Amino acid sequence: MQNFTFHNPTRILFGKGRIDDIAQEIPAGARIMITYGGGSIVKTGTLSEVRGALHDFTVFEFSGIEANPTYETLMQGVELARREKIDFLLAVGGGSVIDGTKFIAAAIPFAGDPWDILAQRAKISSAVPLACILTLPATGSEMNDGAVITRRATNDKLVFTSPLVFPRFSVLDPVKTYTLPTSQVANGVIDAFVHVTEQYLTYPVDAKVQDRFAEGLLLTLIEEGPRALLHPENYDVRANLMWTATLALNGLIGAGVPQDWATHMLGHELTALHGLDHAQTLAVLLPAMLQVRREEKREKLLQYAERVWGLQQGDEEVRIEMAIEHTRLFFQSMHVHTRLSDYGIGVEAIPALLVQLERHGMSALGEHRDFDLTHARRVYEQAI
Amino acid sequence: MQNFTFHNPTRILFGKGRIDDIAQEIPAGARIMITYGGGSIVKTGTLSEVRGALHDFTVFEFSGIEANPTYETLMQGVELARREKIDFLLAVGGGSVIDGTKFIAAAIPFAGDPWDILAQRAKISSAVPLACILTLPATGSEMNDGAVITRRATNDKLVFTSPLVFPRFSVLDPVKTYTLPTSQVANGVIDAFVHVTEQYLTYPVDAKVQDRFAEGLLLTLIEEGPRALLHPENYDVRANLMWTATLALNGLIGAGVPQDWATHMLGHELTALHGLDHAQTLAVLLPAMLQVRREEKREKLLQYAERVWGLQQGDEEVRIEMAIEHTRLFFQSMHVHTRLSDYGIGVEAIPALLVQLERHGMSALGEHRDFDLTHARRVYEQAI
Repeated sequence: MQNFTFHNPTRILFGKGRIDDIAQEIPAGARIMITYGGGSIVKTGTLSEVRGALHDFTVFEFSGIEANPTYETLMQGVELARREKIDFLLAVGGGSVIDGTKFIAAAIPFAGDPWDILAQRAKISSAVPLACILTLPATGSEMNDGAVITRRATNDKLVFTSPLVFPRFSVLDPVKTYTLPTSQVANGVIDAFVHVTEQYLTYPVDAKVQDRFAEGLLLTLIEEGPRALLHPENYDVRANLMWTATLALNGLIGAGVPQDWATHMLGHELTALHGLDHAQTLAVLLPAMLQVRREEKREKLLQYAERVWGLQQGDEEVRIEMAIEHTRLFFQSMHVHTRLSDYGIGVEAIPALLVQLERHGMSALGEHRDFDLTHARRVYEQAI
Repeated sequence: MQNFTFHNPTRILFGKGRIDDIAQEIPAGARIMITYGGGSIVKTGTLSEVRGALHDFTVFEFSGIEANPTYETLMQGVELARREKIDFLLAVGGGSVIDGTKFIAAAIPFAGDPWDILAQRAKISSAVPLACILTLPATGSEMNDGAVITRRATNDKLVFTSPLVFPRFSVLDPVKTYTLPTSQVANGVIDAFVHVTEQYLTYPVDAKVQDRFAEGLLLTLIEEGPRALLHPENYDVRANLMWTATLALNGLIGAGVPQDWATHMLGHELTALHGLDHAQTLAVLLPAMLQVRREEKREKLLQYAERVWGLQQGDEEVRIEMAIEHTRLFFQSMHVHTRLSDYGIGVEAIPALLVQLERHGMSALGEHRDFDLTHARRVYEQAI
């Protein structure tokens, strides 16, 4: 096991009706800005419910945070928050709204150009406190310190992290996920699945608990993902998916083990240039990545084959092949495509993707930091 | 899944050499009291190492905290800390030292009689911040908000919890466990094992992740426990045990599921009246508890038989019987007795144990709150 530091101060309020409890978690007298995306939380009544729970506070709203939240949009939120002297942010939505709100939280008190927080990884020394009401389990942003932000003008999709943007609390009410469109449920399951594999399908360091926990999350996604599509109002299925997605990226399973994240980095460029949903890029790229990196990941792929897919017998190469194929079939069972060609993207698209990767400094990726643009080209080719 | 709130702010510094990092985790200018037990941390050099890392601070020492730490001893620590205006406590040791230090932390600023914190469960409104250097993985106290304290004068062994006594940070360096006596290693493994079963072997609430995580911890203890006895300086074995023991009782696997704890409560009286080590009481009582409660715990016992012991075939009663027997054999493989008669304790001891339980209000225990003194008698009888 590698040395690690683990610290996660986010308070989780999990279960039915927990929005009722938020007022006591927010400092008295706070000037709150509720942030959200389109109008779905208006239609479902969640926004009214949240506002009702906050009747003792001064509340503003900032809406319009889009999927793959953009710097351009978020800076409008920063302006509003500065103007109204907001001192608490409450994100109501999924990973995009939460990520965007983390950026707003960091940008409000930032002295220089807030774009530097992303482009220069400028260190932030303070942030407005934030909290979340999660409506879409997927990214884990509700219990971690990271965010991914896109700059529309330049097609940059960049990450920043800071312990200052851990949510103070996050409400996870599975009932709030009943009304999600099927495609968003499926995307969330795949996003969480690949968050786990990025931290699990690397090389062994004899970290037995982290491995067992990762396998437990994958098994739960495999069992519950298809059931969520069939039975959207099964509370326990939704609860299991919601808690799994949070634990998939809250720092726990990645503590003390190598991490990959190349699939994510290659995926970001597909979203930036071709507009695929984040999870769609992962479903396309993960099977390809595992094929291209099967030698480097051999031992963990065999463990994955055995413990996640029950493949213990026969030739090792066949077991690995079958594990990758089971992964692809699982994504397909969630009705998500696993080939770039399904989106009309062919080899001609690859050079521009590689230029983007290079421009973003992504030429030494993966758990061995040896995954370069040649490897990236092979993965994109394999994914067609 | 049941509703739950999860919050654990303790920062974990895990791995080789992490004592070097503690100074930056403690407020500048702090007046620190190092707390410890007997002289083992003096002999091993850990105390010098800790003092070396704290050369910029004013440091006092309070030693002599015993296994099953007593109110009588700890109050001497409270007096010293008050006299010297201590504002940071650093526990160096195992669960007893950490538990004792939590009590000192709460008692220092307590206005009334500190015994009320235990006997009356008096609410505390402040505590001196504390941190830990863990040398004995077992209780999980290094990453939770609970403590068990004994009053020697009255044979009371009582629990208190408060979010104010979460350690600010805990150093988990597996190397520090190499020199532990075999019996303490074995006790730690059994303690962690039973912490998991108290939160897992209850009744199903379809909490898939919590179940998988609990099973992952049990499997790790079963794999690594005997190896730690055979190969005391195998770093990865020690690292896996250390992280497992912490995760067994940091609130994670117990979030959203029913909990039992009757085995612990019956065990506390055995320690108080007969001086058995805490883990010795658990090894004796868990197999007996599972026999007595096999109907109430039937579904989870079958899941445990299958996922932890690989027992999937044949008659269900036989599978349950074998799972309980495997549990007993595992404890014995750690060289810990599993019968009260092994300690010379017979039926004649039971009435006094029941009087103690009644006096401590322990007459509605277990995940159904229906475990009364009649059940307790049957468990003690079964354990002989």
